[in-house]
Amino acid sequence: MTQPVKFYFDFLNQSSRALYILFEASKIPFEAIPISMLKGEHLTGEFRDNVNRFRKLPAITDHGFQLSENVAIFRHLSREKLVPEHWYPRRHLGRSRIDEYLAWQERHMGVACTDYFQQKWLVPYLQKTRPGDNAVSLARKQLDHTLNDFETLFLNSRKFMIGDNISYADLNAICEIDQPKSIGYNPFQNRNKLARWYEAVRDELGLYYKNVHDEFERNLKLRNAEQSGAQARARALEQ
Amino acid sequence: MTQPVKFYFDFLNQSSRALYILFEASKIPFEAIPISMLKGEHLTGEFRDNVNRFRKLPAITDHGFQLSENVAIFRHLSREKLVPEHWYPRRHLGRSRIDEYLAWQERHMGVACTDYFQQKWLVPYLQKTRPGDNAVSLARKQLDHTLNDFETLFLNSRKFMIGDNISYADLNAICEIDQPKSIGYNPFQNRNKLARWYEAVRDELGLYYKNVHDEFERNLKLRNAEQSGAQARARALEQ
Repeated sequence: MTQPVKFYFDFLNQSSRALYILFEASKIPFEAIPISMLKGEHLTGEFRDNVNRFRKLPAITDHGFQLSENVAIFRHLSREKLVPEHWYPRRHLGRSRIDEYLAWQERHMGVACTDYFQQKWLVPYLQKTRPGDNAVSLARKQLDHTLNDFETLFLNSRKFMIGDNISYADLNAICEIDQPKSIGYNPFQNRNKLARWYEAVRDELGLYYKNVHDEFERNLKLRNAEQSGAQARARALEQ
Repeated sequence: MTQPVKFYFDFLNQSSRALYILFEASKIPFEAIPISMLKGEHLTGEFRDNVNRFRKLPAITDHGFQLSENVAIFRHLSREKLVPEHWYPRRHLGRSRIDEYLAWQERHMGVACTDYFQQKWLVPYLQKTRPGDNAVSLARKQLDHTLNDFETLFLNSRKFMIGDNISYADLNAICEIDQPKSIGYNPFQNRNKLARWYEAVRDELGLYYKNVHDEFERNLKLRNAEQSGAQARARALEQ
């Protein structure tokens, strides 16, 4: 009998959001198991010992087979489950073009969006300090540069990255860009092509995207409010 | 009519060596086009304009289709050409396990081996200076840590990474490790499992590996000798 895939995720993590949307939009039966990275749940207990030796999210267990790494999970699902062809099309060498982006993003888009999010939000949140100006400024420069490259190398006159249909490259990229965008960075300034592409991807994904994205932003706001509250209480105690 | 794949490479680059060995060992018809990165040939002329918009090696052109990124090229060849199954086996979810390694290496093995090679050899070579002690020491720590992770996460009691047969994960990894190894770093110290695995991979690849590897080391020695000669002449002129 077919068991649903166990999917371990945290919406604060961009790859978790991309895969969650893929599961939902493709109607792959799955059991959603939220793991809080801020609470360090990916480092301890059941998850570390029995789910994922990398101690990383996202992760899946498929009939006992444990797998890590966003793009590896995507390819696993596209081979083992019924995933609509447009996410990873065989036609016109679409897969090769998507693979090229998915490899590039590991060392560019993924790094730049994560760095900015960490310096501007995550590190200050965890250490209860203000963001370091220098670190944020460096991360911002890297991000500007990477988004320029993304627009030049991967976007064109067509609606989506590899043509008229949305693929996993688009889904992966929009979730990456939402990471800095959700904390105040404007990715669209002087990037009209990127702005048009972003809107097309968002509209095409519809509610699958909106629900996950709203939950992500709500989560961020909640954390910010908690921290502001704690800081206000700390200041009140100091006075 | 089937045209050979045009393959642009430089043996100083680890991914170029891995793919070259794959082409040869799999008997895929290809036209080998060496591009010298030290001379900046990947940044100019025909290559930049008509071969690879990323200005990166390795790259291929397959019937006019241009593709970049090591792992994307590997998957393209495994889909479009006759590549022996053991490099990317469907059995027992081998592909998913290989994909997991190939994603992990982009942000770990690839980064650590490249950083060490750059700090210890490439930057000093290009700038005609001695390596920076601090930068080399940092890169060395990162490399130590990454190779420990590699041994713990990916090697086991079996001969190769995913079982009794060699796969592209092994080929990719040995070429990465050769990067620091070729300039004096010992990857085997306190890593018996890694040493056994390395030997098994090297022996399995036989002459395909040996020829490419010898050419890489000869190339390195030649560059070093040229530079020593230039430095000796410079010192003689200063006296």
